[in-house]
Amino acid sequence: MRIAAYRRKNRPGTSPEVGLVANDGISLRPLDLAGGDAQRGALTLIEAHARGAAPAQAYGEPVALAELELEAPLPLPRRNLFCVGRNYHSHAKELSASVFEDNTPDPNAWPIVFTKVPECVIGPHDDVHLPGEVSTQIDYEAELAVVIGIGGRNIARSDEMRHFFGYTIVNDVTARDVQMRHQQWDLGKDFDTLCPIGPWIVTADALAGACTQVRCWVNGALRQDASTSDLIFDIPTLIETCSRGLTLHPGDAIATGTPAGVGLGMTPPTFVQPDDVVRIEIAGLGAIENRFV
Amino acid sequence: MRIAAYRRKNRPGTSPEVGLVANDGISLRPLDLAGGDAQRGALTLIEAHARGAAPAQAYGEPVALAELELEAPLPLPRRNLFCVGRNYHSHAKELSASVFEDNTPDPNAWPIVFTKVPECVIGPHDDVHLPGEVSTQIDYEAELAVVIGIGGRNIARSDEMRHFFGYTIVNDVTARDVQMRHQQWDLGKDFDTLCPIGPWIVTADALAGACTQVRCWVNGALRQDASTSDLIFDIPTLIETCSRGLTLHPGDAIATGTPAGVGLGMTPPTFVQPDDVVRIEIAGLGAIENRFV
Repeated sequence: MRIAAYRRKNRPGTSPEVGLVANDGISLRPLDLAGGDAQRGALTLIEAHARGAAPAQAYGEPVALAELELEAPLPLPRRNLFCVGRNYHSHAKELSASVFEDNTPDPNAWPIVFTKVPECVIGPHDDVHLPGEVSTQIDYEAELAVVIGIGGRNIARSDEMRHFFGYTIVNDVTARDVQMRHQQWDLGKDFDTLCPIGPWIVTADALAGACTQVRCWVNGALRQDASTSDLIFDIPTLIETCSRGLTLHPGDAIATGTPAGVGLGMTPPTFVQPDDVVRIEIAGLGAIENRFV
Repeated sequence: MRIAAYRRKNRPGTSPEVGLVANDGISLRPLDLAGGDAQRGALTLIEAHARGAAPAQAYGEPVALAELELEAPLPLPRRNLFCVGRNYHSHAKELSASVFEDNTPDPNAWPIVFTKVPECVIGPHDDVHLPGEVSTQIDYEAELAVVIGIGGRNIARSDEMRHFFGYTIVNDVTARDVQMRHQQWDLGKDFDTLCPIGPWIVTADALAGACTQVRCWVNGALRQDASTSDLIFDIPTLIETCSRGLTLHPGDAIATGTPAGVGLGMTPPTFVQPDDVVRIEIAGLGAIENRFV
């Protein structure tokens, strides 16, 4: 199942809606949700799933995706998104002399987890606004994110599938200069619009997230290309880790980290410029593409 | 003005209410808020202030504070709380060989900012639940927190007073082992119940937050005792820093850091044990006191 949030194109003032992408991949069936519920995107469906309620029913005629403007499937997460740093072997190696220089002696013992504010989320085709003089080192990070269905605390690896709802794509856009100068990374991850998400949420049954390809292009040039099988900490471990002592809730998102190929890792480091277009594609999930302005 | 959230004692199933603490310090005037608004504590008033709406009117007869159970004045912040690390000269010195060992060459150049999830907030007299085997190093951190009134981005130091609503007390309870092993601190700060807040919000006009005394006792023994004049980064700087590129919203809270005297800084390090009671008092603001169970 693919759950998308969207508005109808060319209808000013139109309300947000939620629908299920059809198997043909080019159309969508709108769901019958009240207005306030539809504004919350997929969260309403995830909470219903967590309560054991019947799934919302598709209604009305299929609509072509081409007639819709997709929005973030979680337009305003209920709290900061959990994000994992240094979680591909390849990326850990590429940045070993910069953001990961303060590693503990055993950097693979525990994941690095930081957060992004809910308000920096934008849709899969929205513009990312460069923050001006506040940062001159804006970088992309293509990531597979997992979305929690049934909440819980101290979730065991073995119990992960019961709590796991689905996947989406996150571009964990980062202000490298700000990330590094504050030591703790949150502020460098939190600027307005630094979190494109989408194009929809794919439910866990419909994607083999443990082994799928994550690719990122800047202006058509391939920069990142890796399989999630290169993850240092796999998805069950991340859910287990984030839920230790901390109750996870339906709709919580955990971005699983980015592979090698970020701008900071290039020689010389190469950051996003105005009018650059960053496209991220995850096999079996879809793609998001955002212009930086 | 002191804004408190509370329930009536000895009335099972009673609804949350919001009121203004009277000048006598022992009674309170309930405010006339709808049920849903009252559940959000002071946030409803802060948002009204940000909109320029008339302040809510006190109504009914004064009630003795002794008849009330105070709740957190922000029972569920709208997103993670911003928290500042290493922000007293004295505390930076005490932990220079542990949590701050990875300091940049110029540790005083930029504040360290991390977050706590909204769901770990509890009231000023609620029990903190020790997380069991997940952490054996639970520590207290007495802090003055500032609450944003009118939101904004790139707020200049000189404009700070326009955006600043008031103060409250936060105990930034921390799992030291978890904080350190993940390098990024959030997970070690986020466990359920690790964020007592209260006893109320004091508006900015009613407290000289730049120079007030922060004290913390464990089982009656004084552990922390410092003036906020020892802050490395003062409150205008923290608001300026957190709002760089990032829109702050009404009700956002920034915990300004803790002075020397935490358990980790003792010889040997001494962590909170079951049945310990931690009391934090800030002059001109009030006190919170929480049992650890």
